[in-house]
Amino acid sequence: MDPAGNINVAVIGLGYWGPNLVRNFAAVAGTTVSRVCDLDQERLKKAKRLFPFVSTTTNLEDVLSDSNVDLIAVATPVSTHYELGMRALRAGKHVFIEKPLAGSSKLAGELVDFAKSKNLHLFVDHTFVFTPAVRKMRDIYARGDLGRLLYYDSVRINLGIFQHDVNVVWDLVTHDLAILDHILAGRLPQSVACTGAAHFGNHLADLAYVTLKYDDDFIAHIHVNWLAPVKVRQVLLCGDKSMLIYDDNSAAEKIKVYDSGVQVARAEDVYRLLVQYRAGDMYSPRLDNSEALELEAENVVETIRGKTKPICSGDVGLRVVRILEAADESLRLGGQPVRLDISAPPKSVLAGA
Amino acid sequence: MDPAGNINVAVIGLGYWGPNLVRNFAAVAGTTVSRVCDLDQERLKKAKRLFPFVSTTTNLEDVLSDSNVDLIAVATPVSTHYELGMRALRAGKHVFIEKPLAGSSKLAGELVDFAKSKNLHLFVDHTFVFTPAVRKMRDIYARGDLGRLLYYDSVRINLGIFQHDVNVVWDLVTHDLAILDHILAGRLPQSVACTGAAHFGNHLADLAYVTLKYDDDFIAHIHVNWLAPVKVRQVLLCGDKSMLIYDDNSAAEKIKVYDSGVQVARAEDVYRLLVQYRAGDMYSPRLDNSEALELEAENVVETIRGKTKPICSGDVGLRVVRILEAADESLRLGGQPVRLDISAPPKSVLAGA
Amino acid sequence: MDPAGNINVAVIGLGYWGPNLVRNFAAVAGTTVSRVCDLDQERLKKAKRLFPFVSTTTNLEDVLSDSNVDLIAVATPVSTHYELGMRALRAGKHVFIEKPLAGSSKLAGELVDFAKSKNLHLFVDHTFVFTPAVRKMRDIYARGDLGRLLYYDSVRINLGIFQHDVNVVWDLVTHDLAILDHILAGRLPQSVACTGAAHFGNHLADLAYVTLKYDDDFIAHIHVNWLAPVKVRQVLLCGDKSMLIYDDNSAAEKIKVYDSGVQVARAEDVYRLLVQYRAGDMYSPRLDNSEALELEAENVVETIRGKTKPICSGDVGLRVVRILEAADESLRLGGQPVRLDISAPPKSVLAGA
Amino acid sequence: MDPAGNINVAVIGLGYWGPNLVRNFAAVAGTTVSRVCDLDQERLKKAKRLFPFVSTTTNLEDVLSDSNVDLIAVATPVSTHYELGMRALRAGKHVFIEKPLAGSSKLAGELVDFAKSKNLHLFVDHTFVFTPAVRKMRDIYARGDLGRLLYYDSVRINLGIFQHDVNVVWDLVTHDLAILDHILAGRLPQSVACTGAAHFGNHLADLAYVTLKYDDDFIAHIHVNWLAPVKVRQVLLCGDKSMLIYDDNSAAEKIKVYDSGVQVARAEDVYRLLVQYRAGDMYSPRLDNSEALELEAENVVETIRGKTKPICSGDVGLRVVRILEAADESLRLGGQPVRLDISAPPKSVLAGA
Repeated sequence: MDPAGNINVAVIGLGYWGPNLVRNFAAVAGTTVSRVCDLDQERLKKAKRLFPFVSTTTNLEDVLSDSNVDLIAVATPVSTHYELGMRALRAGKHVFIEKPLAGSSKLAGELVDFAKSKNLHLFVDHTFVFTPAVRKMRDIYARGDLGRLLYYDSVRINLGIFQHDVNVVWDLVTHDLAILDHILAGRLPQSVACTGAAHFGNHLADLAYVTLKYDDDFIAHIHVNWLAPVKVRQVLLCGDKSMLIYDDNSAAEKIKVYDSGVQVARAEDVYRLLVQYRAGDMYSPRLDNSEALELEAENVVETIRGKTKPICSGDVGLRVVRILEAADESLRLGGQPVRLDISAPPKSVLAGA
Repeated sequence: MDPAGNINVAVIGLGYWGPNLVRNFAAVAGTTVSRVCDLDQERLKKAKRLFPFVSTTTNLEDVLSDSNVDLIAVATPVSTHYELGMRALRAGKHVFIEKPLAGSSKLAGELVDFAKSKNLHLFVDHTFVFTPAVRKMRDIYARGDLGRLLYYDSVRINLGIFQHDVNVVWDLVTHDLAILDHILAGRLPQSVACTGAAHFGNHLADLAYVTLKYDDDFIAHIHVNWLAPVKVRQVLLCGDKSMLIYDDNSAAEKIKVYDSGVQVARAEDVYRLLVQYRAGDMYSPRLDNSEALELEAENVVETIRGKTKPICSGDVGLRVVRILEAADESLRLGGQPVRLDISAPPKSVLAGA
Repeated sequence: MDPAGNINVAVIGLGYWGPNLVRNFAAVAGTTVSRVCDLDQERLKKAKRLFPFVSTTTNLEDVLSDSNVDLIAVATPVSTHYELGMRALRAGKHVFIEKPLAGSSKLAGELVDFAKSKNLHLFVDHTFVFTPAVRKMRDIYARGDLGRLLYYDSVRINLGIFQHDVNVVWDLVTHDLAILDHILAGRLPQSVACTGAAHFGNHLADLAYVTLKYDDDFIAHIHVNWLAPVKVRQVLLCGDKSMLIYDDNSAAEKIKVYDSGVQVARAEDVYRLLVQYRAGDMYSPRLDNSEALELEAENVVETIRGKTKPICSGDVGLRVVRILEAADESLRLGGQPVRLDISAPPKSVLAGA
Repeated sequence: MDPAGNINVAVIGLGYWGPNLVRNFAAVAGTTVSRVCDLDQERLKKAKRLFPFVSTTTNLEDVLSDSNVDLIAVATPVSTHYELGMRALRAGKHVFIEKPLAGSSKLAGELVDFAKSKNLHLFVDHTFVFTPAVRKMRDIYARGDLGRLLYYDSVRINLGIFQHDVNVVWDLVTHDLAILDHILAGRLPQSVACTGAAHFGNHLADLAYVTLKYDDDFIAHIHVNWLAPVKVRQVLLCGDKSMLIYDDNSAAEKIKVYDSGVQVARAEDVYRLLVQYRAGDMYSPRLDNSEALELEAENVVETIRGKTKPICSGDVGLRVVRILEAADESLRLGGQPVRLDISAPPKSVLAGA
């Protein structure tokens, strides 16, 4: 951060996502993207053409040793997040890492702890949390319109690209875990179950069903699938007062809120419950047009400037990775639910305290 | 069956479904519905008005002792299926029972065995199997268009009526189990898992997720829910050659077949799998307009006449109840998968052999 | 009407619509359907089976001479409406006639006048007006939510049954004219244009576009088509304050109201208009489940009893026929707009005054 | 065109569309975009940042006098097309003009004639014609799958931006006229009718209905509207063999073809036509992912190189303007149909011959 408060950003990794980071950080007021780094010369050339203002390099050390750089954004495969993140932190940089934060909760915890010990900011890139739809969904829940939450049900399927390093859970469930963590303000599930199938002999699940059980009978279920003939991106978030649908495929009506609920009465003289429905109107709020990634970049920059708090800190990223890890374990056990020890954070975190 | 081959039918239970049975059996050529029985006088009056040709009674014995009656159709709550079915069989009548066949696999097995021992026909009412959409789906699979089956995924949700005697699994999953049994020609899953929640203190799950694992990595997943703000009735049945969607809410395009598939190649020099997609055309076959229940009634009548084979015999109903029972057990165990001993049918069946 | 106030109804014509009239009039409290009449013996037999309480005849005189009959409902082809209606009125019966009221405004006007001269009630069957969706649409407009009306746009298309006696305008546009007349409380258009095509050499248009121009720049446009591969039943009713969509194909969200509007400002120093949009929330009101035809039958019966006013009197039917007639004339003129003399009702009406 | 066959392009006008032209012409092999021109310095600065390879100017003469420039692309308001186009042609440049070609058929005709007299290529930018969906639609029609064409029906509505220099017809109907001209290979309608309304006192229609009548009872109807609460982009193109829907809002199923048709038989002994429907399967062909504007730019460049023929020459643009002009005249006449003299092209064209 120079005396004028400008933030200088470097982006590592120019695959699918990296160029979006360059563009959106560059769009934030008082922010400069000065450097990009990738091992592939072609990508660097293309970046130079699109973003004439950056200097390019294949050598990470050029970036780490540049004392002007304040923040390093990492957009590389998951397996490299830990090492690149640690090197950046050791070089005294704030770090922003693409989701999921790291390949295991141990590694994620070490990143979190090390950043804290160095008084540096660590962010995880949970872009969905900054979309107009998810922000509206959180608002509606937070102001009590849904009542007591009953369930979250997500379907996130399409004819997808098989990832070579992660299964469909790490690829797609991460989005839902980020959304849930945001809406529930960090509340963790008590148990995680995951079942699925790897149809093509490569031991990486191509479809999976993840169930999270929380206290108070709240249940979340996530269906992810790389083998579906149609693209579906639909979430139900239902409470006893009203029920919400978030359809990310809909251009004009992404969020619909149904004034439908359940009324429970205990008949005095009979020992049975009377459960009745109340069906009502529906409304679909207009959403603003803000770009999620630009809002996220703003939050990151303003946090570094000390003017706001992080929305997706490393702690958030760690919580998500813990659940992903538990889902993997359940998947290995054939779908048996795995308890998540909520009170005890992973060892590395304790060690870092 | 009189000398002319006419079949005489009696219907027990005139709630929601019974009047449909009267109407559809009456529509089959060479079939008469002569008697209906219910404990509720108002229902009997209404039936008499709608169907002037029936005689009504509150006394089951009137029906059982009528030697003209060939077939008794039972459309009463699940908890009464076993007793009513057994009484009808003991009276020497063929029996047609609303789904699910009985409240447990033991009772269902006894019905099946007893019918066989008496040389009487026992049918279960799996109406969905006779719909134009499900018959088309079976045809498409049977002629090999889908290739090797990868998964079946069903969503069957709406703001439903809470049943007082069964949970949402017995109410709604039954439909999918009937469809699966029909398409797979009786193939049973190796394990069943079921997770869900009972939000209103009555211990009856109001939403549930059921997972069936078959051999050859075929997986079926069924989401049923009485608490959803919208009605969804959608099934994906996907193979490696093409993929099918069955949307029962769609008036004109219930079945869509996507010529999309997966191509797997093993690169010679690298030890990794190349999984690629083939996206192609879609087509939606025109379905005939036949009424499912009328087709079903015809199959029942023609089976009794010895002119065809039953499509939904008691054996089918028993297989479905075995899976429902396993789902219930898994639900009690918090979602832990329960193995289904495929080779060994339930004891009562063996005993009956 | 007997001393107890019971209304006795006879139905003439048992094609597609007649049986619905029998059923719904029979469902109204204090109403009896005593007689049905059709030239086809098979239809009479079927009616007797469905409605054991009616007596059947092929002879209209049996009905006309029955002094117990208060109301005659006519559900026959359009070309017979005038004659049957006049005979029923001459016999001193109240008359309810399927839409459109008659084959020309002259004949419709004579029916209206004759009924008035005899102090008998004449009704036209505009069932759509009684649907929950149209009643809601009228309410929303009437309470000012839409603001000043800008346009009505209707698409009413499908692969239809070619009528042998009327073209697609008389078959389908009638519905929209009934809805418009109801919402606009009888306001008539100033001009009518109709263009279309008769593709199969029978001189009956199979698709048509009808444009109605009202004062205050309100315009209505109706697309009707028997040759469309999909069924669409969608109406836009838009005002400068908000805009409404009525999609009759939608099961759960037939009516949607968009809080979108237009803001017009006249910039002081420039001679041009600034037209800007306001995009806002949408809501979809819950509709009741009442059956339109039953509500309509109730209105008819209560009007005869003198307890309410008719909603679809003969005057309404006459207004609709005048517009249909003008549309036909425009169609003959190749689409040239035809003025409707709003102030001067057709001669027969004047004569009847 | 330099000795190596490279084509050098300049773009005039950097509003909404101009930058797309820069990007897409730059993407064509052997093509350079060397210059851009606009009166607005801010736009020029932004263009320089996005496209560092262009030189910018506010002075059109800089472009016209640059002997390296082969092609000038004009993306300015309609009212300036004629003057800018003529100046570019006079400077010896090939010209590509945004749709519609000019503000009147007289001006459009003069552009066409002058280009021909100078042996220069004149193109109109009808981008829609190059989309995968429209190309597929044309293919399906051209290979006879639809049979004899019955009608074209287009709905192109949304909450739009009010244009200050043209009405909704010139803004939106142009797209349909370009599509129709392409599918029908230049066949012109015999008459044009247009009705609509200008609700806000500025005399520019904000909604309109245009009807085109061709020989052989083919009819086209286009509904355009800036005042609709939802965005619809749907075209029906129906023949007597099969029927096609093109829904531009659909991500995955833009084109659907219904194997539905009409069968006409003349009953020998009765003088009436038997018109019957054949309802059949539907299929939705997979479309390629090519970008329309890039294909269009390629066609332009290859035409200049003499390697192919133009798809959207000035003649096409002139035909479309003639219809727009007739629509405007009909609108002024209150919707009265206006005949189009098909055999006699506008005077300027004759003069140019």
